[in-house]
Amino acid sequence: MRPVYLDNNATTRVDPLVVEAMLPFFTEQFGNASSMHAFGADVGTALRRARGQVQALLGAEFDHEIVFTGSGTESDNTAILSALETQTGRNEVVTSAVEHPAVLALCQWLQKSRGVKVHVVPVDSRGRLDVDAYRQALGPKTAIASIMWANNETGTIFPVERLATLAHEAGALFHTDAVQAVGKVPIDLKQTEIDMLSLSGHKLHAPKGIGALYVRRGVKLRPLLRGGHQERGRRASTENAPGIVALGRAAELAMAHMADEQTRVRSLRDRLEKGLVQRVSNTLVTGDPDNRLPNTTNIAFEFIEGEGILLLMNKEGIAASSGSACTSGSLEPSHVLRAMKVPYTAAHGAIRFSFSRENTDEDVDRVLEVLPPIIERLRQLSPFWKDGRAAAAQFTPTYA
Amino acid sequence: MRPVYLDNNATTRVDPLVVEAMLPFFTEQFGNASSMHAFGADVGTALRRARGQVQALLGAEFDHEIVFTGSGTESDNTAILSALETQTGRNEVVTSAVEHPAVLALCQWLQKSRGVKVHVVPVDSRGRLDVDAYRQALGPKTAIASIMWANNETGTIFPVERLATLAHEAGALFHTDAVQAVGKVPIDLKQTEIDMLSLSGHKLHAPKGIGALYVRRGVKLRPLLRGGHQERGRRASTENAPGIVALGRAAELAMAHMADEQTRVRSLRDRLEKGLVQRVSNTLVTGDPDNRLPNTTNIAFEFIEGEGILLLMNKEGIAASSGSACTSGSLEPSHVLRAMKVPYTAAHGAIRFSFSRENTDEDVDRVLEVLPPIIERLRQLSPFWKDGRAAAAQFTPTYA
Repeated sequence: MRPVYLDNNATTRVDPLVVEAMLPFFTEQFGNASSMHAFGADVGTALRRARGQVQALLGAEFDHEIVFTGSGTESDNTAILSALETQTGRNEVVTSAVEHPAVLALCQWLQKSRGVKVHVVPVDSRGRLDVDAYRQALGPKTAIASIMWANNETGTIFPVERLATLAHEAGALFHTDAVQAVGKVPIDLKQTEIDMLSLSGHKLHAPKGIGALYVRRGVKLRPLLRGGHQERGRRASTENAPGIVALGRAAELAMAHMADEQTRVRSLRDRLEKGLVQRVSNTLVTGDPDNRLPNTTNIAFEFIEGEGILLLMNKEGIAASSGSACTSGSLEPSHVLRAMKVPYTAAHGAIRFSFSRENTDEDVDRVLEVLPPIIERLRQLSPFWKDGRAAAAQFTPTYA
Repeated sequence: MRPVYLDNNATTRVDPLVVEAMLPFFTEQFGNASSMHAFGADVGTALRRARGQVQALLGAEFDHEIVFTGSGTESDNTAILSALETQTGRNEVVTSAVEHPAVLALCQWLQKSRGVKVHVVPVDSRGRLDVDAYRQALGPKTAIASIMWANNETGTIFPVERLATLAHEAGALFHTDAVQAVGKVPIDLKQTEIDMLSLSGHKLHAPKGIGALYVRRGVKLRPLLRGGHQERGRRASTENAPGIVALGRAAELAMAHMADEQTRVRSLRDRLEKGLVQRVSNTLVTGDPDNRLPNTTNIAFEFIEGEGILLLMNKEGIAASSGSACTSGSLEPSHVLRAMKVPYTAAHGAIRFSFSRENTDEDVDRVLEVLPPIIERLRQLSPFWKDGRAAAAQFTPTYA
């Protein structure tokens, strides 16, 4: 039985065409791009091409606005730390309650250890940002607002263009963690006021270990890594040529597949979601149905634990993810679902299914066949289910 | 004509066996190591194995002393910044004048922007550290001493074991940038007092974009990248599984080839060096002949420019490197040769030849055939040569 991989928001399979593009840079064009000989010069040409490919995917005006990094986390950290250093007299950060840890954990540390005031803007039950609260949090002390383009757990999309404009009205920089959005929704940065944007290769069929930070021309960047003069002095380290070439090729492929992502992938996601809601009682689709990534659905199955669902699906060769921070050993539901005030009995049983262009109708059929009996079986074992049936019957999902 | 690559201190060709080891992690075992399903679990097993392979190469006592990073630069930056944060009441750094920019540029910035006092210990004409000056620079305010294991331009090896002990006597941590040493000389960290050690994959036939930082058990590490809980909370970012597996395999291969590095590679280097000194007048071998990496020679050809030599060698398919910071557009000789007070007329014509296990006798033959006429030709064009002949005749090389 072919495994079913529905955890593409965690990481994607590298596209074989991307592997093909990067392979020569391991054993043939292996030079150091900064070297004064043919081994290096060839690589420099390939890097320029890749930078242009990423520029095109983002709709950036200039290719030098792309700074290659080692990960989305590094891009996020760089953007926020840089803003705090370059925005003189401003020592506050505005962010949301549902950001990725690469933003939130950094902000918590900045608040605790660096005296930075962090405003964490809440979201509503659909995961939508409270824009009034966001506006009020901005002020003359705000160095940067960092709000994700789309949420990794629910797929909810934020109005980043408008949020960037509001940040600028307060004299602050605006950064967006677009790790989940890039390649899934069209982006045209030159039409926006966004100052910085983070992306990660392995979320769009490029390998792990490569990311990028878009930095609008004119925005000062304080490097996080110091040493050599690579990336115009903005990120020291020998250029990861295979990774950069791979990211460029992946960006090109993402553009070519964008329509597919918006139609076929979306319809696969919708069919799975509708099918599960029909077949399984007491489910709750979390996130904003009107404004979501086309590839993501987060479905909470009430009165059972997500971990149990994942383990039994795994036995059947189906990979998905719990919304919860299970891997860190916490038994609490994820910070995202808690911020959305998803009822406790539901949040514990939340499963994120995230598609990519590699998924098929057969994948959806298989989950629709396998998962409902798993849920039924787990519920029979759950004391909460027996006790909760009456209460559950009265529960009104916000979307189903 | 097969190209001759003698720039292995800049970067190495990825070993085809390393590529073979990493390939499955792009398109088959592509899961996120933190995920709760088979796609993730397989990867976790591979990462543990790779950690053990790097542990073995370094002679580290515990595998969890290895923290995977994105580059040697990131490792260096992390070590120094961490020490300044964790060594309460200590705000000074001791380093050498010949460190890599990943240490020196960071230290310069720390001094300029962070009020950190940096002691830059000088070296002698052979590139050997002034150990008395080092000892005097250490004190109750020293957070960390960071001294490279071996110099990238000359290959000179530093007595890091003793330097670590001296640092500890002052209550300071000791870090070594061992990017050029790892894989070229035997290392057994458990026999030393070294607290932290940086290495870079692409210097030992693994790809670019992967590095590691050894952190002795008990030494506190403040992460540079904040976000997820990867690497036991010491380095956030989705684990670069292909890169980590590649580094592990490269470490294993480096151990297998260590004897070769110490004998065959050394004899290739020695034959090139002796051959050039015999065939070309007015040369100066820089670095410490008694204590050098087996793969490196830095030869200064007086009265001509290294850039010209490199360009003409490049036309013949031979890749080497000038000791100078030419790639940054500077016309000054490198900071390393300046620190060694190599005469100006020689430092400008310094060429670094750095071997690897992939080099052959034919490579040496070819350079010995091609390079002397290049030098002769450039000297005929050089006004300094004509004017300098008399002076040059009196010049006594420190080693030849």
